Amino acid sequence: MSKSSWFEEVNPEETLALRFKTTEHLFSKKSPFQQVDIYNTVSHGKLLAHDGLVMVTEKDEFVYHDMITHVPMFVHPNPKNVLIIGGGDGGTAREVLKHPSVEACTMVEIDPVVIEASREFLKQTSCEFNNPKLKILTEDGVDFVKTTKQKYDVIIVDSSDPIGPATPLFNTSFYKDIYSILSDNGIVVSQCESPYYHRDMQETLLKILKEHFPNVHLYTYTNLSYPGGYWAFSYASKGLCPMMDLDKKKVEAAKFKTSYYNANIHWGSFQLPTFMADNYKKLLTPLPEPRFSKI
Amino acid sequence: MSKSSWFEEVNPEETLALRFKTTEHLFSKKSPFQQVDIYNTVSHGKLLAHDGLVMVTEKDEFVYHDMITHVPMFVHPNPKNVLIIGGGDGGTAREVLKHPSVEACTMVEIDPVVIEASREFLKQTSCEFNNPKLKILTEDGVDFVKTTKQKYDVIIVDSSDPIGPATPLFNTSFYKDIYSILSDNGIVVSQCESPYYHRDMQETLLKILKEHFPNVHLYTYTNLSYPGGYWAFSYASKGLCPMMDLDKKKVEAAKFKTSYYNANIHWGSFQLPTFMADNYKKLLTPLPEPRFSKI
Repeated sequence: MSKSSWFEEVNPEETLALRFKTTEHLFSKKSPFQQVDIYNTVSHGKLLAHDGLVMVTEKDEFVYHDMITHVPMFVHPNPKNVLIIGGGDGGTAREVLKHPSVEACTMVEIDPVVIEASREFLKQTSCEFNNPKLKILTEDGVDFVKTTKQKYDVIIVDSSDPIGPATPLFNTSFYKDIYSILSDNGIVVSQCESPYYHRDMQETLLKILKEHFPNVHLYTYTNLSYPGGYWAFSYASKGLCPMMDLDKKKVEAAKFKTSYYNANIHWGSFQLPTFMADNYKKLLTPLPEPRFSKI
Repeated sequence: MSKSSWFEEVNPEETLALRFKTTEHLFSKKSPFQQVDIYNTVSHGKLLAHDGLVMVTEKDEFVYHDMITHVPMFVHPNPKNVLIIGGGDGGTAREVLKHPSVEACTMVEIDPVVIEASREFLKQTSCEFNNPKLKILTEDGVDFVKTTKQKYDVIIVDSSDPIGPATPLFNTSFYKDIYSILSDNGIVVSQCESPYYHRDMQETLLKILKEHFPNVHLYTYTNLSYPGGYWAFSYASKGLCPMMDLDKKKVEAAKFKTSYYNANIHWGSFQLPTFMADNYKKLLTPLPEPRFSKI
């Protein structure tokens, strides 16, 4: 590859593209699951792509990893045992391990090539791969949740889009198993696509969650490197409410800094635009409304 | 232009680009101020560009126009006289005129070519150009605010980026004049760029507002067609608080539908990620915090 080139992510319809100028093609390997690439870009640092789709860039991964992790981790009063399905770049594990209550974090990534690439070229996200609390398994997350005997307080489904190896993660039997391995106070948060470009997938996942969980919510974040910027995570729990059960004092007393996450953006991210609230009205559990008084 | 081509917006550093597949180049004219183009795109409907930068697409303009308009219009208890600086595509005027309290809306657009192009090819946004309550002036907004004898309840600075004709709109004397023509309960909302790509401009505008207004806030929205997706509006007022003074019942009783705006997203949009809250701590007025109780 020439020294100066462009990485381009094109949508399936081939009508929209986002291009990043690159200086190096650091890694390229076809795994049994997907094509894995890492580029060095001029504007966004290193960029990890699966099958030509941006997964992570160094510039904005903090948004995604803060929001997929700290929302459930700060709602749960005492998360000790955490499971990550996917998340092979390591960014989610890095954030989970910042919480001092965590005794064990298990990351089940199907593709060893993603782990290999991230370990060598994405140290910003893979920096906790040697943390003794972290157990990395390279196996199928679907099989893992079906067979494990453990219970988890928080499960994070940090998957790619449901078009490659992540397809079975958008399935009702997977979430039935998730429910059964969650502790009584458990929460599961999942990567839940774009409300503009993947409305069907978003709706599908919310429907599946509603089959199994009493509380189903959707919250949003914005990402510089995903199409349209505006993306979402689903939140499902056996009981904990993301608004009522967030302890703001605990967030403020945390001994680690977050560049994106805070208690205000936590509750703000659950406020949905009308078109989303209307689309998913029957699927989402009502949330309490904020009240304000003079400061 | 060939039948099938690409419109590409490239950042000034030429390291990042967003491309839209086009089927037609409907309008192209160099005005004394800028190059104005309208394309038909496959994915986003018609697209208006000034000097090669996306201003509006039919697919996502509802987000921008809802948020720049309805936030101040629903906080103000009775907005009768509204001023728009810029906004030549007409989308902001369209939203302002949905509020039945409005007696007069004045739109001051410096570039007649933008109005001409929008009137002919962007009927989705320019549909209220013939509304008898709307007065369209093609003159310099800076001169207008200096010389008008009228008072306005809400002023919306719907400008392009501060690199072309909109540069003087990011200036302290402009906001001194805005302050003096706002009524006692007045609010001014301005297009305030991206926190990632234009942090300096965002900070400059907040500093200027703080020189003149007791209340200065920043709120965010996401746009499919602007770089990075995550953009902001500034909010400055002589007294009205965007949280305390929003009357949710008034929002719910409105006789018009909004696809993006609602009272929840109104509150949520003022909640800033840590990096923004920290950057602008000294410039932003503290906001009341929400309290939640069981529903």
